[in-house]
Amino acid sequence: MKKLNTNEIEEALKNLSGWALKDEMIEKSFTFKDFKEAFSVMTHIAFECEQQNHHPNWENVYNSLSIKLSTHDAGGVTQKDIDLAKTIENIVAQG
Amino acid sequence: MKKLNTNEIEEALKNLSGWALKDEMIEKSFTFKDFKEAFSVMTHIAFECEQQNHHPNWENVYNSLSIKLSTHDAGGVTQKDIDLAKTIENIVAQG
Repeated sequence: MKKLNTNEIEEALKNLSGWALKDEMIEKSFTFKDFKEAFSVMTHIAFECEQQNHHPNWENVYNSLSIKLSTHDAGGVTQKDIDLAKTIENIVAQG
Repeated sequence: MKKLNTNEIEEALKNLSGWALKDEMIEKSFTFKDFKEAFSVMTHIAFECEQQNHHPNWENVYNSLSIKLSTHDAGGVTQKDIDLAKTIENIVAQG
């Protein structure tokens, strides 16, 4: 999986509202109604991550969820991260 | 819920292997077999957190899970954190 360059990432992020490139990762924070809603979304995301065989760096505190995506083996952001970010956006939109 | 002082926390941590006091929080990191095992444990913990009405600051990356506990309203560590840490230890031991 090829590491994307900054231009390629910025182009891809045009379709991913709220995601930003920082320190070779793309990241976004979400706020939910409460812990139960936050963890429900995390659970939904977790199943998709297993399916895509790609996993986030994520941090949860009560109703907040901060997600960072990168591809360890490529040393940066790849199409796998863009795809997972899209999946996450779809899940949050459904929730 | 009363904030515990350092001596009280250190005393309580004697029964909680691997937990340490840092920046007014108690914290511990766990490593599991893979993401599925890590997230399964998180899910189990999440239900107990809802029941105890007390929630962690936690971060997961693939098979690693870092947990920090404090009581926001008390500005530090309280018995609620000690109780939740014990619950987490029991869940991990069962897993």
